[in-house]
Amino acid sequence: MLPRLARRGERANTITAPSRAEAEAELAAIGRAQARLVCWGEPDYPSALAAVEDAPPILTVLGETQLLQRPMIAVVGARNASANGRRFARELAAELGQGGLVVVSGMARGIDAAAHLGGLETGSIAVVAGGVDVVYLEENRGLYDALVRQGAIVAELPLGTEPQARHFPRRNRIISGMALGVVVVEAAARSGSLITARFALDQGREVFAVPGSPLDPRARGCNDLLRHGATLTETAADVLSQLAPQLVGAEPLRRVRSVAVPVPSPIPYAASGGGSEWKPATGSVEAMADADGLELILERLGPTPVAVDELVRQCQMSAAAVATLLLELELAGRVERHPGNLVSSR
Amino acid sequence: MLPRLARRGERANTITAPSRAEAEAELAAIGRAQARLVCWGEPDYPSALAAVEDAPPILTVLGETQLLQRPMIAVVGARNASANGRRFARELAAELGQGGLVVVSGMARGIDAAAHLGGLETGSIAVVAGGVDVVYLEENRGLYDALVRQGAIVAELPLGTEPQARHFPRRNRIISGMALGVVVVEAAARSGSLITARFALDQGREVFAVPGSPLDPRARGCNDLLRHGATLTETAADVLSQLAPQLVGAEPLRRVRSVAVPVPSPIPYAASGGGSEWKPATGSVEAMADADGLELILERLGPTPVAVDELVRQCQMSAAAVATLLLELELAGRVERHPGNLVSSR
Repeated sequence: MLPRLARRGERANTITAPSRAEAEAELAAIGRAQARLVCWGEPDYPSALAAVEDAPPILTVLGETQLLQRPMIAVVGARNASANGRRFARELAAELGQGGLVVVSGMARGIDAAAHLGGLETGSIAVVAGGVDVVYLEENRGLYDALVRQGAIVAELPLGTEPQARHFPRRNRIISGMALGVVVVEAAARSGSLITARFALDQGREVFAVPGSPLDPRARGCNDLLRHGATLTETAADVLSQLAPQLVGAEPLRRVRSVAVPVPSPIPYAASGGGSEWKPATGSVEAMADADGLELILERLGPTPVAVDELVRQCQMSAAAVATLLLELELAGRVERHPGNLVSSR
Repeated sequence: MLPRLARRGERANTITAPSRAEAEAELAAIGRAQARLVCWGEPDYPSALAAVEDAPPILTVLGETQLLQRPMIAVVGARNASANGRRFARELAAELGQGGLVVVSGMARGIDAAAHLGGLETGSIAVVAGGVDVVYLEENRGLYDALVRQGAIVAELPLGTEPQARHFPRRNRIISGMALGVVVVEAAARSGSLITARFALDQGREVFAVPGSPLDPRARGCNDLLRHGATLTETAADVLSQLAPQLVGAEPLRRVRSVAVPVPSPIPYAASGGGSEWKPATGSVEAMADADGLELILERLGPTPVAVDELVRQCQMSAAAVATLLLELELAGRVERHPGNLVSSR
């Protein structure tokens, strides 16, 4: 459907869908890598991430898929972390694990690696910027292997993708999106960890920051977060008490590994009987995807974000129709999404 | 009147008022000490303090009485402060002075002494727990003399009073009461500085706290204040911007004394090798690679790395002596080296 919708939204350059053969080759490669695809809407998809505005439609997962069902906490921070910072991150992650939280991070050097190590016993997930099979940092190969055995590696991008600079911010939104909150341990001003914290705020997640001396440039980012309302964090108890309301009724902690059972995935979009055409599996969206509808929406959009609900009300169309039209416009690069279900022209 | 009123109130033990002769003798002594009495309700009485519930009826002032008319900021903190903490307090006090505030503190070791030194050029007031003529801490005699010449010493208790433990909390209420706000730099949990912060809150004054690593016990009190709403303070600008509304219309900054007085060295007095004797630090101090030297260095080290040069300066030892002591401590696994000739505790 995508190429057709994009064309109707008057996108300049065309989108081409992969062929069936290409798709099948990719699925086979994923199988060989002992990875799995988990799609939005499936029970295995992390529930916190599913609620995020631009949740990835598909995740590739290597390792213990059932970890994705547990409540998670992101622990992130500086690559050039101090020895103290690393030790602190590791101990904090271990205690958060004891408290019932799976630790999510980005498998970078420094704080990330320390956090993964601390959480390894009780559950740790690395969200990587490239493919799940690409070990981005040779020094972390041991950690990677441990995570594949005991934890999980998660990626939005396909197998074999070498991560590039532009992939990292997108990856960061997944780290924060999977978690109930983000703990930032040592971060300079304008660092990647602050991007993750920013995403967390936009996604309505808790932000925790570990304070540090004003004389330590690696504390600059954390102190700034504290100044803007992040929860001051000295111990795991600071995090756990803040998240307590959201942890009530959460599955109690247990050792992660048992026998890994591959669960067949009910893919929400399934092939129709014989042909090459794909259609929605659950209900059909009767698109009023015509020029009039596009016109109606475009004329109501400006650079200031507006609520999609408001558009629905003003355009007197069904919510489904507006959603379809917005998707077309988005694919055409003509609208931009904002947190809180807001859209603007671009 | 007091004895009569107390009797009528059925007070158990009687109050006896001093005789006229005793009062006159005390006034004469105050005159000889070149001090002054300032009473509640007089124009010279600090206006912020006058508004406090249990403001002292009489203050004894030694030094520049007119400093009491200027807007003040209290800078207080740990006695066993780290080298970084002392440097920070001194620089912060100097910048707050440049910003038009007179620095008030308690003339204790560590942060207090550093704050007074930083504020000396632009105006600094010590509120002491005993009499204004009693130098409680022999190592601060140089600072005391400088404050008498360039700043002011203020006391609630009469001339000649030796301060006792119970006097300090009462003194702390005067420190916070004179100031628009209290900045706490390094304070352990349950320390005297937190009592001052507590008074500040009760008196409706601003509380500022300098964050620190959770691994540093000397940051515990400050981080706790931050958790409870104190303003996070990394620079003087954090304080000045918060107090800006109260500083509008305040007297512009001017040099306190027209005659330039030589400013004493950072730590004006240091221990000589022997023990009970003290002498000015300007002379050469023998290397003291003994328990005292180790103590001096350890006390100034925290988890946040500090420059070895700064240690040399603050400990008033030769670079070679400090290097030797650091080597010993490193071999003992008690200090850690960092790039850029920095060291920290471990």
